[in-house]
Amino acid sequence: MSQPQTAITPTRDADFPEWYQQVVKAADLAENSDVRGCMVIKPWGYGIWEAMQRGLDGMFKATGHKNAYFPLFIPLSYMAKEAQHVEGFAKECAVVTHHRLESDGKGGLRPAPSAELAEPLVVRPTSETIIGATYAKWVQSYRDLPILINQWANVVRWEMRPRVFLRTAEFLWQEGHTAHETKAEAVAETEQMLGVYATFARDWLALPVFTGEKSAGERFPGAEQTLCIEAMVQDRKAIQAGTSHFLGQNFAKASGIEFLSRENKKEFAWTTSWGVSTRLIGTVIMAHGDDDGLILPPRIAPAHVVILPIVPKPDMRDSVFAACDALAAQLRATIFAGEPIRVEVDKRDLTGGVKSWEWIKKGVPVRVEIGPRDLEKGTVAFARRDRGHKEKTFPTNAELLASIATTLQEIHDTLLARATTLRDTHTVKIETREDFVKFFTAKDDSKISGGFALAHWDGTAETETEIKEQLKVTIRCIPADAPAEDGPCVWSGKPSKRRVLFAKSY
Amino acid sequence: MSQPQTAITPTRDADFPEWYQQVVKAADLAENSDVRGCMVIKPWGYGIWEAMQRGLDGMFKATGHKNAYFPLFIPLSYMAKEAQHVEGFAKECAVVTHHRLESDGKGGLRPAPSAELAEPLVVRPTSETIIGATYAKWVQSYRDLPILINQWANVVRWEMRPRVFLRTAEFLWQEGHTAHETKAEAVAETEQMLGVYATFARDWLALPVFTGEKSAGERFPGAEQTLCIEAMVQDRKAIQAGTSHFLGQNFAKASGIEFLSRENKKEFAWTTSWGVSTRLIGTVIMAHGDDDGLILPPRIAPAHVVILPIVPKPDMRDSVFAACDALAAQLRATIFAGEPIRVEVDKRDLTGGVKSWEWIKKGVPVRVEIGPRDLEKGTVAFARRDRGHKEKTFPTNAELLASIATTLQEIHDTLLARATTLRDTHTVKIETREDFVKFFTAKDDSKISGGFALAHWDGTAETETEIKEQLKVTIRCIPADAPAEDGPCVWSGKPSKRRVLFAKSY
Repeated sequence: MSQPQTAITPTRDADFPEWYQQVVKAADLAENSDVRGCMVIKPWGYGIWEAMQRGLDGMFKATGHKNAYFPLFIPLSYMAKEAQHVEGFAKECAVVTHHRLESDGKGGLRPAPSAELAEPLVVRPTSETIIGATYAKWVQSYRDLPILINQWANVVRWEMRPRVFLRTAEFLWQEGHTAHETKAEAVAETEQMLGVYATFARDWLALPVFTGEKSAGERFPGAEQTLCIEAMVQDRKAIQAGTSHFLGQNFAKASGIEFLSRENKKEFAWTTSWGVSTRLIGTVIMAHGDDDGLILPPRIAPAHVVILPIVPKPDMRDSVFAACDALAAQLRATIFAGEPIRVEVDKRDLTGGVKSWEWIKKGVPVRVEIGPRDLEKGTVAFARRDRGHKEKTFPTNAELLASIATTLQEIHDTLLARATTLRDTHTVKIETREDFVKFFTAKDDSKISGGFALAHWDGTAETETEIKEQLKVTIRCIPADAPAEDGPCVWSGKPSKRRVLFAKSY
Repeated sequence: MSQPQTAITPTRDADFPEWYQQVVKAADLAENSDVRGCMVIKPWGYGIWEAMQRGLDGMFKATGHKNAYFPLFIPLSYMAKEAQHVEGFAKECAVVTHHRLESDGKGGLRPAPSAELAEPLVVRPTSETIIGATYAKWVQSYRDLPILINQWANVVRWEMRPRVFLRTAEFLWQEGHTAHETKAEAVAETEQMLGVYATFARDWLALPVFTGEKSAGERFPGAEQTLCIEAMVQDRKAIQAGTSHFLGQNFAKASGIEFLSRENKKEFAWTTSWGVSTRLIGTVIMAHGDDDGLILPPRIAPAHVVILPIVPKPDMRDSVFAACDALAAQLRATIFAGEPIRVEVDKRDLTGGVKSWEWIKKGVPVRVEIGPRDLEKGTVAFARRDRGHKEKTFPTNAELLASIATTLQEIHDTLLARATTLRDTHTVKIETREDFVKFFTAKDDSKISGGFALAHWDGTAETETEIKEQLKVTIRCIPADAPAEDGPCVWSGKPSKRRVLFAKSY
């Protein structure tokens, strides 16, 4: 039986994990480097990250945060300060033990034995401890609070099974770290930043997300409460796309963030931390991509529009190129979602078909072709990435310019609607253990199983662990808006007060 | 004898290096962390870096470059690939030898002996080798060239005598890395980026710079040619503020960046690299600061304007705050140098004097005070950081809004003019060895000596080394625009063809 031809092999249905790797490659987003687990983020992939940074950074600043920068290295002794943190994070770290190289006498180099550090340094896996030690110096009085700081940085967590964007030894992220006078303020900050992430996911990534709280077993090591956003991707697995932690006074006590209160008493500050990473790029690929490659939500596309000159004869080159450049300039003077429209003009000496398919695979929202006949008519050939690749319209330049911002918003809305339908179709309430097991058991070779299950949980770590071990299913979150509801735990049959969200996950 | 009181002690004349440290502290820019040589860049300091990044990034993109990201870690063997590079860079590096920590049995942690890396990893001191290895995979044909990529990143070079911003173990920078088909293209790129740096220094940092080429002795290890911008700061020393390297085919050969040429022959690519770092912040402090603290060129100021509410009685608070917020909103809707004006409203519960002096020390270009009497009259009290702190004017709100962009540009122009006068006054042609020695010998305890000397040099490494060892004076550059001119070397008396720029330096 003949298959419809697609630009990506295999298709999502045939082998989702391999489809993902092929999209990363075909869209020229990133590649593995020679350093195990460390990726090279290529310009198109990095451009997505830059757009995400702009969006998030604006939202962080609008909520009163400022950026700063803290050291890459953490003294080994700091890692041991917070008991739960050490369990969770002080394991797979890159450890710096020497500060000089010397000749090994065989034409190579070696760490100089004379330059061994008295105390090894850990390459930050996250910065609570080093930032806590700094805040301890900054905070004397309640007047020094709150501290509302974010950092854009690279972090390293040694990974045995790396996967580009989803799980890499080095990745890029932002980590917000705030310190407050009262518990209520810190809790409000934790919730506010979760809201920022959910809004960003919806408005920039075209992703509907579940928001909620992690179970104790899935909490950030050292946190009192971990809130998260969870997205569904097309193999119906969950991906944790951002977390916001209420750290209580745990890190303040470990780091000594103490202040003189309004009542003139020494008190420990209440802290939070929150972060999203380059993992969001992986999330977007898996949420929106199709069998022809990446599909980018317009606000995070490094280019909104690509213009492809069609030059059948060399003597037409100059006039076609000039028309393309003129249209590009007009588009760049147009605003979409508060930013000038980003345009690439692809003048490479390749056939139109080759170029067009490259840009389809890269997920650029809009493709515009201009050839000699378009020049005569004052029109262009116009195609949207959210529609079939043969589906073209032929607006005039003026029509294109007048409609481009609306079109980009429509593409965003289409992607959000599709992702919402996917999520809603595959999020179901499950009542019995039999149905629960069936739901999470793939029906065919695709390995794609049910999706998200809203089911009762008895609240015990025992049940959580059994489900995880037997089905590879975890509690993704206790949804923020779940109503109180009595029912029997889907696994143990014991009483439960509300449903939680179960899924397989990345 | 009584001294005029200044906000910074000591003054620049009394002790320039200590003045620098005190300005960094008083302006709340950065501080040393507990990790030797690693600084914490505080929000006001990081805000300066963010503004610099925006400016440079725009210029890089306008010249056809895109950003990407390469691994933090470099395999040890890569460091040894380019012979001169290894000499220059493979010394004071942070070396990762382990990838896991374990309990040391005494309540602490230690690198797990079982997790020793087969090949140690170096934390990048610069990325020519790892990027070269990546480009080697990307480049097959002349059609794959040029590659025009920039990276914003942190780098680590172990420093024994760290000094905030000027010399730190970890610092932030950008490194451009390009690969070209021909030597001419690579040379043109090297020169273009030097031009970008000189323009940025003038238009964003209000710094006039000398541009030119480094002598062989001062070249980047592995480069064929190192171009640089050199600025004079107020102790009349030079600071290398940016470099652009033509790397010839050296790194291409070491990394194997080979391509099939238009003539169907295997050839090595021609590469360049270029960078500026957080050192620019130190440069700006030393170039423009005065005895009251930092003075920021407006385009890199995290806030252009601070509004200080004056609230003599608590019941006036709301109306004054409302007027301040309203003015802030109007200012933010005004454009300076292509960006919305950045405004802080300082509502902290401190006296007007304390707040005003904090902002003077932070170098904010414009201070605006609004009190109850201003509300009645519809005026503000207005002060510029480039003028004396008592010098105030009292424009109406409308006058302020109409003139603010012009005022900010005037402040920029004033700073540039002052820095140019400083530089021109203390850049002199010197003909004899006696005058040369005298010029570089401080006349008093201030340790401030002559400045920049344009003098003949015989072109030998021997003379260069003698001058460096005896006077701590180096050849900063062979100026780009120096005319051919015969004369005797100021040191050896041997014949010379052109003058070079000598100075003490950071």
